[in-house]
Amino acid sequence: MAAHLEFPKRNAAYAATFDKGDLALPPAKKYIVITCMDARVEPASQLGIELGDAHVIRNAGGVAQDAIRSIVISQRLLGTREIAVFHHTGCGMLLFTTEHLREVVKDADPGNAVVAEAVDKIDFLEFGHLQESVKSDVKFLQEHPLVLKDTKVTGWIYDVTTGKVSQVV
Amino acid sequence: MAAHLEFPKRNAAYAATFDKGDLALPPAKKYIVITCMDARVEPASQLGIELGDAHVIRNAGGVAQDAIRSIVISQRLLGTREIAVFHHTGCGMLLFTTEHLREVVKDADPGNAVVAEAVDKIDFLEFGHLQESVKSDVKFLQEHPLVLKDTKVTGWIYDVTTGKVSQVV
Repeated sequence: MAAHLEFPKRNAAYAATFDKGDLALPPAKKYIVITCMDARVEPASQLGIELGDAHVIRNAGGVAQDAIRSIVISQRLLGTREIAVFHHTGCGMLLFTTEHLREVVKDADPGNAVVAEAVDKIDFLEFGHLQESVKSDVKFLQEHPLVLKDTKVTGWIYDVTTGKVSQVV
Repeated sequence: MAAHLEFPKRNAAYAATFDKGDLALPPAKKYIVITCMDARVEPASQLGIELGDAHVIRNAGGVAQDAIRSIVISQRLLGTREIAVFHHTGCGMLLFTTEHLREVVKDADPGNAVVAEAVDKIDFLEFGHLQESVKSDVKFLQEHPLVLKDTKVTGWIYDVTTGKVSQVV
């Protein structure tokens, strides 16, 4: 069954006991979590983020470079002052290169110039080493001209086999 | 207290009962949820997404245009075949314009050419109408050359005051 057909029933169970309809738009605890889209990652439960507390940005890898638009909106319009970057063990971003993925996409649609041009424009931002990727993302944010200077930036790894986090930076 | 100081204790409570350390990398139910970074949005509980089931992409607004890199990785390397876009009531993206935010950033650091140049390069992808933004994001994905042709794309609105979702497309 298509997944979207299950949303109404599953959501109805959530809504039936929902009692947090008056939370404010700005995150109460003024922080951002950046993490991976990975199916084994679930920031709210794994970090104990309560509804209304934090902005959560997720993309392939939990890559800071891909989050700047969201971070500027979060900091300048909604008052966040702290950023925590979480990458995780077993991440798919460790398993391919941009060059390889471009070939996969082109091979699936041979001779399609529109597809080839579109995929050649994308840097997929993969990484080769987990700890180093966390460190370089923290540094990237600390040095970025659009991230507020007084931002506390930390970097972490979540272990998908144990459910445990450890701080890297 | 800085939020990151609470992560170890909160995570320890999660890890103490963690028993899903053998989940596979590819999402079991082969779908992607794209939604907003908003602090009142929590896709896992609100949609009943179980750990291991789905990729979750989050950015300011839940904007599809900002998710293409992640979607290509998800579809081509990890087998997802369905995308659900969720925007929500009370979204901050309805409350500003790119032009306004660029002024906010420049006014905070007057005369800084590096900041001005960096912020002028960013389209903040705000939207003026909630239902229309969902429809146009669904259309954007259906027509995008790098999104697989057989992808089932649906569009939804989550109501932050009631906890309920409703399908738009």
